[in-house]
Amino acid sequence: MSLLDHTHNPEAQSFVASANLADSDFPLQNLPYGLFRRAGSNESARVGIAIGDQVLDLRLAASAGRWSSAVQVLLQPLADGDLNSFMAQSASKRRLVRHALFDALAEGSKQQSALTACLLPQAQAQMAVPCRIGDYTDFYTGIHHATTVGKLFRPDNPLLPNYKWVPIGYHGRSSSIGVSGSTVRRPLGQLMPPGAEVPVRAACKRLDHELELGLFVAGGNALGEPIPMADADEHMFGVTLLNDWSARDMQGWEYQPLGPFLAKNFATTISPWIVSMDALEPFRIAFAHPASDPQPLPYLDSDKNRSEGGYEIELEVWLQTETMRAAGEPATRLMRSNFKHAYWTLAQMLTHHASNGCNLQPGDLLGTGTQSGPEASEGGSMLELSLGGKQSLSLPNGETRAFLADGDCVSLRAFASKDGARRIGFGECSATIVPAPQL
Amino acid sequence: MSLLDHTHNPEAQSFVASANLADSDFPLQNLPYGLFRRAGSNESARVGIAIGDQVLDLRLAASAGRWSSAVQVLLQPLADGDLNSFMAQSASKRRLVRHALFDALAEGSKQQSALTACLLPQAQAQMAVPCRIGDYTDFYTGIHHATTVGKLFRPDNPLLPNYKWVPIGYHGRSSSIGVSGSTVRRPLGQLMPPGAEVPVRAACKRLDHELELGLFVAGGNALGEPIPMADADEHMFGVTLLNDWSARDMQGWEYQPLGPFLAKNFATTISPWIVSMDALEPFRIAFAHPASDPQPLPYLDSDKNRSEGGYEIELEVWLQTETMRAAGEPATRLMRSNFKHAYWTLAQMLTHHASNGCNLQPGDLLGTGTQSGPEASEGGSMLELSLGGKQSLSLPNGETRAFLADGDCVSLRAFASKDGARRIGFGECSATIVPAPQL
Repeated sequence: MSLLDHTHNPEAQSFVASANLADSDFPLQNLPYGLFRRAGSNESARVGIAIGDQVLDLRLAASAGRWSSAVQVLLQPLADGDLNSFMAQSASKRRLVRHALFDALAEGSKQQSALTACLLPQAQAQMAVPCRIGDYTDFYTGIHHATTVGKLFRPDNPLLPNYKWVPIGYHGRSSSIGVSGSTVRRPLGQLMPPGAEVPVRAACKRLDHELELGLFVAGGNALGEPIPMADADEHMFGVTLLNDWSARDMQGWEYQPLGPFLAKNFATTISPWIVSMDALEPFRIAFAHPASDPQPLPYLDSDKNRSEGGYEIELEVWLQTETMRAAGEPATRLMRSNFKHAYWTLAQMLTHHASNGCNLQPGDLLGTGTQSGPEASEGGSMLELSLGGKQSLSLPNGETRAFLADGDCVSLRAFASKDGARRIGFGECSATIVPAPQL
Repeated sequence: MSLLDHTHNPEAQSFVASANLADSDFPLQNLPYGLFRRAGSNESARVGIAIGDQVLDLRLAASAGRWSSAVQVLLQPLADGDLNSFMAQSASKRRLVRHALFDALAEGSKQQSALTACLLPQAQAQMAVPCRIGDYTDFYTGIHHATTVGKLFRPDNPLLPNYKWVPIGYHGRSSSIGVSGSTVRRPLGQLMPPGAEVPVRAACKRLDHELELGLFVAGGNALGEPIPMADADEHMFGVTLLNDWSARDMQGWEYQPLGPFLAKNFATTISPWIVSMDALEPFRIAFAHPASDPQPLPYLDSDKNRSEGGYEIELEVWLQTETMRAAGEPATRLMRSNFKHAYWTLAQMLTHHASNGCNLQPGDLLGTGTQSGPEASEGGSMLELSLGGKQSLSLPNGETRAFLADGDCVSLRAFASKDGARRIGFGECSATIVPAPQL
């Protein structure tokens, strides 16, 4: 925990009063990055920092604030709306900016009046995908998810032999990644109805969410040059929530032998604020596979990964149906889980990805796979919670769901908290399902 | 064949003499697009057109030539080095530019002296990936490849039940796409040796090429809005050769259940010149699945696809080993095949990809999958030619290969030819394997 510093002091407060509320996702200790426009404006998108219920506009703050010359240089790409170029900076330079922003936004800061003029209420900000995502990869680190889903297909052998050796992953679609607040159109696709011999084209009947985190890559690696575990942290920028929407009926018919394709690539939704690795530093935990499991091959192993490679992050899925919304009823929580249950760490995902020389680039996104907990009630997808669609969930208003219905709004939420640290929130990752196009 | 026009006249000649040689890949009727720099220069990349053994520099030609005002506007993104923006134009506008360039480069053109000053020998041009490839998808349309590879794993049931219904595809990695002339580093990876119970990390021992074509997307579609078959041609820009390098031993161990990942994403190589759909227009052929096979679902069917959805394109793989190169011996041809054997057309690939609302974007790349012919000698990969590595190929100089060795240079070549049409070439897609990094 050598990297804990005064920006992790749980007592520190901001001059932005809303950041000091105990339940704020965005206290002074968080300072996540996002991309926004003033709602209704045509201005080009700007990089901002969430603080309480406000956004600090970094285009304005870069010139209005007083910064050291080193920080001023680092703020320039942020002032230009180019988060990718900032992501490419070294971890120590990114930390320098965190410290400068923390000090400037702290209670008693001499910059209070200058920076107050650079704040915009989040309610007036329209968020966008925060950076240019060159490539998006989705992993499969949720072992309880992999086991439960595997059981549906292979009751005797739910986990394939490679699972405990290989951080399984596959490439996803960048173009269809959207930010929280979007709608998701139910996809049309080929389905093979049970017992049928000929597939049909129809609207997906088994539409599902998947509860994931997304890791954004910081600096990249040159093609052909793997990233050793010892360097993995340096290449990690921060984390969002990620909903890997899935069309289960399309997936079942199309996925052999090359993996999921149209069942996934119609939409992925992320939360707008990238929580930096620095903000998550207090929530690192020891990480080790059970002694009865194979230990990682050396290229996926390091002392640091064992002593603090994991992160303890609470995860939740909430659902508000159209009926609930119309009646003014709040969303209901479908489940909760924790990222500590993942079978592979963020560092192992990243190192494995580059282990064959594949070149990662600043802004690339690595999904963690569905993060289900060990209990049946902790499934991170409807597929798990409804036992493959066989057992509908009852919602508080009497509605039932085996899979998602048009009008359903699914929200992922996450936060990290522990004694002695300020609670860090991730905000929301929400999207509402709209009907499929006419056939 | 209603779109054949004077730019397809096989008798037409260019004032660039090398374009008129019978074996030139780049006659006046071709005019493919590429991105280049003067070799050794630091200038920003420019869009060019291949003509004979020359490149027409479109930055220079846009201002040196005399163009209609409509063409002048369309040339602007090309003059700016931004092929993507030109790709996004309608098919009729792209055709307008083809006609203007054809007329300007034709024998007797009044622009001969102005445009001669805009030519650079291809030998002095360093080619680059021609456009920004947002997303790269690889299909699996080579039914002979799918059958042969399937037999290695499932002798009784080589083709899975979905193959003849679904144009199978999966997402690939954009960042590691390189252009012909690159080296490809043999990847390190996890391998499970035969009979072993514990995997090892080692250099890939079964490195392979795959002979494919790559389709570049022209205009895109909005998220949630499928592209009907009737509109597919409008969204197709042009075609390159594509080598989908594959690490077979890594692939066998990692690919269940989510498909190929590190076995593929260490490198993909494409040829530098995008041959436009217009140039390929004379080589369209009727396309239909055998009556004994399932007929495509209506969303993948159209009269035009049946009457002329296929393309007859000869495909070849050549190999020059390090020993051959040192001895001054030429490359040897490993196989030949033809794109007419593909089970799905380019239009079906594109329409299927967008059929769930997935948004395609200008410059996206869609690989066709390995294009093997029906004969065993026509395999588009070493995996097929060596029967899964069991039977080495003998090369003319006495060397043998089951898979690829360090120093091997693999070249894909392709051309379209028929009576009454000028032969259209694709140039080369070559890359040389360099040794894996030290473990």
